[in-house]
Amino acid sequence: MSEELPKAHFTEENSADVVVGQNANAQNARLKEVMHSITHHLHAAIKEIEPTQEEWMQAIMFLTKTGHMSDDWRQEFILLSDVLGVSMLVDAINSRRPKGASENTVLGPFHVGDAPEYPMGTNICLDGKGDDMVVRGRVLDVDGNPISGVKIDVWQANDEGFYDVQQKGIQPDFNLRGVFRTGDDGSYWFKAVRPKHYSIPADGPVGALLAELGRHPFRPAHLHYIISKDGYDEVTTHIFDPDDIYIDSDSVFGVKESLIADFVRVEDSDRIAEVGFDGLFYWDVEFDFILAPKV
Amino acid sequence: MSEELPKAHFTEENSADVVVGQNANAQNARLKEVMHSITHHLHAAIKEIEPTQEEWMQAIMFLTKTGHMSDDWRQEFILLSDVLGVSMLVDAINSRRPKGASENTVLGPFHVGDAPEYPMGTNICLDGKGDDMVVRGRVLDVDGNPISGVKIDVWQANDEGFYDVQQKGIQPDFNLRGVFRTGDDGSYWFKAVRPKHYSIPADGPVGALLAELGRHPFRPAHLHYIISKDGYDEVTTHIFDPDDIYIDSDSVFGVKESLIADFVRVEDSDRIAEVGFDGLFYWDVEFDFILAPKV
Repeated sequence: MSEELPKAHFTEENSADVVVGQNANAQNARLKEVMHSITHHLHAAIKEIEPTQEEWMQAIMFLTKTGHMSDDWRQEFILLSDVLGVSMLVDAINSRRPKGASENTVLGPFHVGDAPEYPMGTNICLDGKGDDMVVRGRVLDVDGNPISGVKIDVWQANDEGFYDVQQKGIQPDFNLRGVFRTGDDGSYWFKAVRPKHYSIPADGPVGALLAELGRHPFRPAHLHYIISKDGYDEVTTHIFDPDDIYIDSDSVFGVKESLIADFVRVEDSDRIAEVGFDGLFYWDVEFDFILAPKV
Repeated sequence: MSEELPKAHFTEENSADVVVGQNANAQNARLKEVMHSITHHLHAAIKEIEPTQEEWMQAIMFLTKTGHMSDDWRQEFILLSDVLGVSMLVDAINSRRPKGASENTVLGPFHVGDAPEYPMGTNICLDGKGDDMVVRGRVLDVDGNPISGVKIDVWQANDEGFYDVQQKGIQPDFNLRGVFRTGDDGSYWFKAVRPKHYSIPADGPVGALLAELGRHPFRPAHLHYIISKDGYDEVTTHIFDPDDIYIDSDSVFGVKESLIADFVRVEDSDRIAEVGFDGLFYWDVEFDFILAPKV
């Protein structure tokens, strides 16, 4: 039997209650709960902002343009979610872990599922462009024990801030991507090039909003990771370059304190030779990941 | 000189503050204020809802579809604003009036600017379809004095719930629309037909949302008005039929207590003849409008 709907008519004061009152017969309890929260916060924001009719129409047109900009290749609403910190917040809510465990950050749109698996120490830079870099460290459990056989799926932009998939025919396929597995001592290492910051797509309504807010569209340089092993909580994360000029103003708020690495310049010729480079220096990045048990 | 941006990185706790911190250099103070409010309420809603990644993607796709449904003829985001009570709330905020003055409600999409002006008593029903109706009353100021020369712009759906502009070639042009002016005693009257409830467009994502929420898409039967005279606050409003089955559940929340009229069935043959009808009955609707001085 359906519940009788409340009979109150609309006033400025009772507005949100009147609206959610009409959801009394919703079969989908979760949607009902979601709409209760959204409606109340939306009405509270409107009461705080007191938009004019013209301002409200601007908001409608902004959302409409954001929809029109979105297709199978470009998702402007995800971008909006990103620049408002909502993507990061949803990620944070869904990846709460014990203190000490490596933190998540956003996946981003540039992961591919079929990157090649390489032996430890392989250089994932396939075109030799950029500053040489070694990335190394260990994967440990929350008690400090090494974990072997952990899958490390890594991908990054090149030294000009572009991913291979953004430069088909310019970069080799699978440039700066690879899968590694930790050894018995939990260690991993591979060679690459120091990544560069880049802009999120800024030619749409979200870019225009950022400009109007005096915000830039850049993300500080980073490497992406998905770190996984059965029995452990999978970590989707980045490590960040602390020297990047955008480290304190990531346009999508992906930076967490615990994810800022160290990029150490090594000029010692023995060490350069030892890792197999032949230049005058390389960047050494040591970063350990800590996995929490799967709950 | 631009303000130095705050250096805090993202956490679940400080998320909204970190996001609005990046707007420190916005030149547009109003937009900065608006984004402060929107960001805080949006993050608060997300923290309350704790959406899964899949749920968040559903929200993104809902907004995307709502954008794709919108074009020059169909505005699905306005419809979304309507069914969430936001259009009514924005209208209420922008039309606060002294107690006793006629209240506003939403304009809706069916007003046309060039409806013909008629002498008092004219029948605006041009095709003779539906139950005869007389609408009459006075326009007064807040002290109860009649106001002459007030422009009364009225439009309504027909007895099947369609406006003329929705049925080009079926209804005559300008059917059930007209402009009248009050006489020296502030009175107005015209003839029409009793309107019927109708559905808002329900074949898009907003209609699907209503269905999932157990809500119907109907608006209770009503007449639209714009009532205006120099020196007075213009009133955009409806009057509603109290006997309509949807009177307590308007899908866009347009009903306010003060806007519910009385539809009285008149079967007295003398009165029927006096107003110029020739049927067995007509509906008599008496409704006074009270105009507040322009501020």
